[in-house]
Amino acid sequence: MIKANDPVLKSWVEIPKGSDFPIQNLPFGIFKTKYLSAVAGVAIGEYVLDLVYLHEHGYLDGLGLPAGIFNQKYLNDFFALGRMKVREVRERISELLRDDIDDLKIHTADCAIALIPMGEVQMLLPVKIPNYTDFYSSEEHATNVGSMFRDPKNALLPNWKHLPVAYHGRASSIVVSGTDIHRPKGQVKLDDSDQPVYCPSRKLDFELELAFISCGETKLGQSVHTHQAENYIVGFVLFNDWSARDIQQWEYAPLGPFLGKNFGSTISPWVVTLDALEPFRTQGPEQHPHVLPYLSFEGEKNFDIVLEVLMKSEHADETTLCRSNFKYMYWNVNQQLAHHTVNGCNIQVGDLYASGTISGPSPGSYGSLLELTWNGQKTLHLPDGSERIFIQDGDTVILRGYAEKSGVRIGFGDCSGKIIAAL
Amino acid sequence: MIKANDPVLKSWVEIPKGSDFPIQNLPFGIFKTKYLSAVAGVAIGEYVLDLVYLHEHGYLDGLGLPAGIFNQKYLNDFFALGRMKVREVRERISELLRDDIDDLKIHTADCAIALIPMGEVQMLLPVKIPNYTDFYSSEEHATNVGSMFRDPKNALLPNWKHLPVAYHGRASSIVVSGTDIHRPKGQVKLDDSDQPVYCPSRKLDFELELAFISCGETKLGQSVHTHQAENYIVGFVLFNDWSARDIQQWEYAPLGPFLGKNFGSTISPWVVTLDALEPFRTQGPEQHPHVLPYLSFEGEKNFDIVLEVLMKSEHADETTLCRSNFKYMYWNVNQQLAHHTVNGCNIQVGDLYASGTISGPSPGSYGSLLELTWNGQKTLHLPDGSERIFIQDGDTVILRGYAEKSGVRIGFGDCSGKIIAAL
Repeated sequence: MIKANDPVLKSWVEIPKGSDFPIQNLPFGIFKTKYLSAVAGVAIGEYVLDLVYLHEHGYLDGLGLPAGIFNQKYLNDFFALGRMKVREVRERISELLRDDIDDLKIHTADCAIALIPMGEVQMLLPVKIPNYTDFYSSEEHATNVGSMFRDPKNALLPNWKHLPVAYHGRASSIVVSGTDIHRPKGQVKLDDSDQPVYCPSRKLDFELELAFISCGETKLGQSVHTHQAENYIVGFVLFNDWSARDIQQWEYAPLGPFLGKNFGSTISPWVVTLDALEPFRTQGPEQHPHVLPYLSFEGEKNFDIVLEVLMKSEHADETTLCRSNFKYMYWNVNQQLAHHTVNGCNIQVGDLYASGTISGPSPGSYGSLLELTWNGQKTLHLPDGSERIFIQDGDTVILRGYAEKSGVRIGFGDCSGKIIAAL
Repeated sequence: MIKANDPVLKSWVEIPKGSDFPIQNLPFGIFKTKYLSAVAGVAIGEYVLDLVYLHEHGYLDGLGLPAGIFNQKYLNDFFALGRMKVREVRERISELLRDDIDDLKIHTADCAIALIPMGEVQMLLPVKIPNYTDFYSSEEHATNVGSMFRDPKNALLPNWKHLPVAYHGRASSIVVSGTDIHRPKGQVKLDDSDQPVYCPSRKLDFELELAFISCGETKLGQSVHTHQAENYIVGFVLFNDWSARDIQQWEYAPLGPFLGKNFGSTISPWVVTLDALEPFRTQGPEQHPHVLPYLSFEGEKNFDIVLEVLMKSEHADETTLCRSNFKYMYWNVNQQLAHHTVNGCNIQVGDLYASGTISGPSPGSYGSLLELTWNGQKTLHLPDGSERIFIQDGDTVILRGYAEKSGVRIGFGDCSGKIIAAL
């Protein structure tokens, strides 16, 4: 049997060169149109495949799917069927879209209804997110931040190489790509005063992250071992962890980031499955000192995924601000999930676990303006001649990501958000 | 019209002396019995009043309640009707239970079915909690912790008196009173080593807190002013923020508490309404320096609620460990909600906002073992002759709270949890 991510596969749907969504990808999302309320779909080329239509017309028969499983506002119930069931569905969809299989393609009337041009759909949040955790797993990012605000010679705190540091974030304010974000207001302490002032943030930043979404749940008290962790991970989305550096700096001691983060986070709408990313596994950085046994793992647990941040201002076209890679992550997702549950913390379906800012070794690969401008010491130049240290009102920040090999590109689509004036 | 919390009211249901649940209280909760799946109820004396039965039999007619609003696993949809609607329902229930009103009491067959002895019900989580935030709003607690771990002369960090410090917690692991909690395992760094070890926590603690539950939602970008905040607050529950001090100490820099907290938090099952607590308003501590305008408020925004922690070991009866009061809070709930939303962070119905450990000025009022034993420097003695510095397996910790005036006691019921061995 040919696997759904085999480079040899061709679809009868036309896939433009450079598309994020060839037949080898088949990510899941939730969309609506002028005529359809929120339902589940799969991206293929420049179309969205309507899973409700396929299911109701018998194309997914034999998979044991509950009635109405795709006719929902969120993918949670579908993902709760487990990673193996999601895989079966994706493999069946792959068959339906294959050029050498007639099951769907000869039914041209069905094809015309089930395939909706992307220009006609609005993408929505793919999952209802019960819990959101943000890790801090890029050594380069943690080192940069530690160098800037603490001590370049001891940039990493003593715990950093022993455990994947993380904190809980706010689930309510996670929005889908395309949602405008108001510049947050809040308390800021300026250098020339002892007293804080109340004002719109002056140091608004993005953070380039990838996040995984869980498809399983555990009971309180239970732990997930590193070798089981991938059973609980259905796939990934891009994640922009917008950050108000000035608000964060004043508030964060001793309990961590709060209002500097929870005014909004943006995710890309398509859940790219772990299965689609299988060919892009790679070794992560060597870990010294050795980790405790509960964090040890075998095999290739990092993924070679190119990640980019672009900015589009009101007067300038898109320009690339940085280019990083998910393979730089010091702590991998298996270790993250094992650590998160080692104390018995329970996970739920649809939970979002973000990587933390992913920076690479070179300055061009830093995943935030804080690092790219070294907290304002350098200036970035946009194509319209304007300069940026932090984000201005009217700026749109776009995250993109893709893995590419053997002529196959597994992409995420845009994770885009525009900053608008404070309310 | 007599208000539902008037001390003059008497119920035809017998209320034992010292009961937490006189007719002036009428808190809402979710319960099940051998015969009923999860439904909404109200506590009265030693009974639970079945709201589904009342609603279906016309006793709540005229209130415009949606069908099935109480026949649900959680109170979220009911609370989403808003604080005024919850008040109307509570006032109607007050009438139905009043000795001088015949509407329900003369229908003895209905009474016999709708009133279920507390011994026959199991209380469940009252709300599905979309987001959980923990504040750090007791000056005495923050001062104690700062004195122990930093500097007694500068115990409070510079931001503490300018803003209500808070962090996001884990919603998934919040459980209802009566749920056993496994001792968490995790990384701990002992004083005599540079390397962490993996072991069950040796410094397991409780934290005495009160939490409010929201009954409104805001849009991203919107802020709630202090004078509007109470429209979003339906009521309170007791909250035990179990804490593994040793895990927390090693992990918490720089992003705050994580695995030291998220293995479990316990809430009491009855949501005691803000309306029932109205007679117990009091002034909070004076705030110096003056707060920024968005945190200013008028009127009495603290509440005089006695709070206690008791311990019951496997061989000893309950013994009181401390007695504090909610009135000690430096930052009140109006300020907390105004601060939380000042940056545009959106709130959702059922959100839980906890106070942080509530300690008073005297050592007997400290709300955690960390403070009561001053991080192990003192020892507590239980009635069976055993000693405690932190919690042992088999220990049950019980939080209780009540406001009392004019012969009326508005109580919360128990918030109880037993620590059992690590899995």
